[in-house]
Amino acid sequence: MPVSIDPPLVAIASQFGHDTLKNIKENGEFVLNVPGIDMLTKVRQAGKKLPYGKSELKEFNIETEESDEVKPPRLKNCISSFECKLEWMKEAGDHMVIIGRVLKAHVRDDLYKDGILDIDKAKTVLHVSRSIFATPNKVEAE
Amino acid sequence: MPVSIDPPLVAIASQFGHDTLKNIKENGEFVLNVPGIDMLTKVRQAGKKLPYGKSELKEFNIETEESDEVKPPRLKNCISSFECKLEWMKEAGDHMVIIGRVLKAHVRDDLYKDGILDIDKAKTVLHVSRSIFATPNKVEAE
Repeated sequence: MPVSIDPPLVAIASQFGHDTLKNIKENGEFVLNVPGIDMLTKVRQAGKKLPYGKSELKEFNIETEESDEVKPPRLKNCISSFECKLEWMKEAGDHMVIIGRVLKAHVRDDLYKDGILDIDKAKTVLHVSRSIFATPNKVEAE
Repeated sequence: MPVSIDPPLVAIASQFGHDTLKNIKENGEFVLNVPGIDMLTKVRQAGKKLPYGKSELKEFNIETEESDEVKPPRLKNCISSFECKLEWMKEAGDHMVIIGRVLKAHVRDDLYKDGILDIDKAKTVLHVSRSIFATPNKVEAE
């Protein structure tokens, strides 16, 4: 979730023992990718547990491209990607809360209209439970 | 966002100077309410800045009911409400990251089917930008 506007900071929570946490501790950097619902199959594959050191990206042919500011690559074709430097992390129960400083944000130009995300085109992925997901539709407030 | 399963912990981020942060610091407790899109007008009213001590709830006739485990009341008619005790807070840029331990969770029975949220009935509120909001629709993964 977004946590700070200036400086731009985002928060994620990662379960202890997961490769995500190991990788962030090791690198001090990460990329937060926001996939579209058209990438749902790949998202689910990437969430599968492979032995540490074995890349889910290679295993499932998930395309990446080089990041500009950090070592980890970013995923291709996402709605947006945020290249982050680790700001701090702190334990919260069975997860670690991880705060990243956004060094560079990538957004797909075709999904923006007048500087605002066109949410009916940018169909993000929301997880409900097990194999049930959801994607948002725009609602204009009065 | 949810951060821990056992113990159940949630995270929110609150801007410095906002009443939410002042209230949580003072009480050590808070309620995280999840409104439906049918409550959008009230959600927007409640987000308006009134002088500290002046209640947005009273001002805009937002109905509440007593919480079971904490002093702050919970909102009526929400999809769910989480009564929380402050676990810890830590500065992150211009916001405070606040971790709450869920002491009691309320959910509307009619929105659950086989223990899973019926997302097409439970139309949550997502904020996109300014007066633009969104609400999710279910997508079943392969």
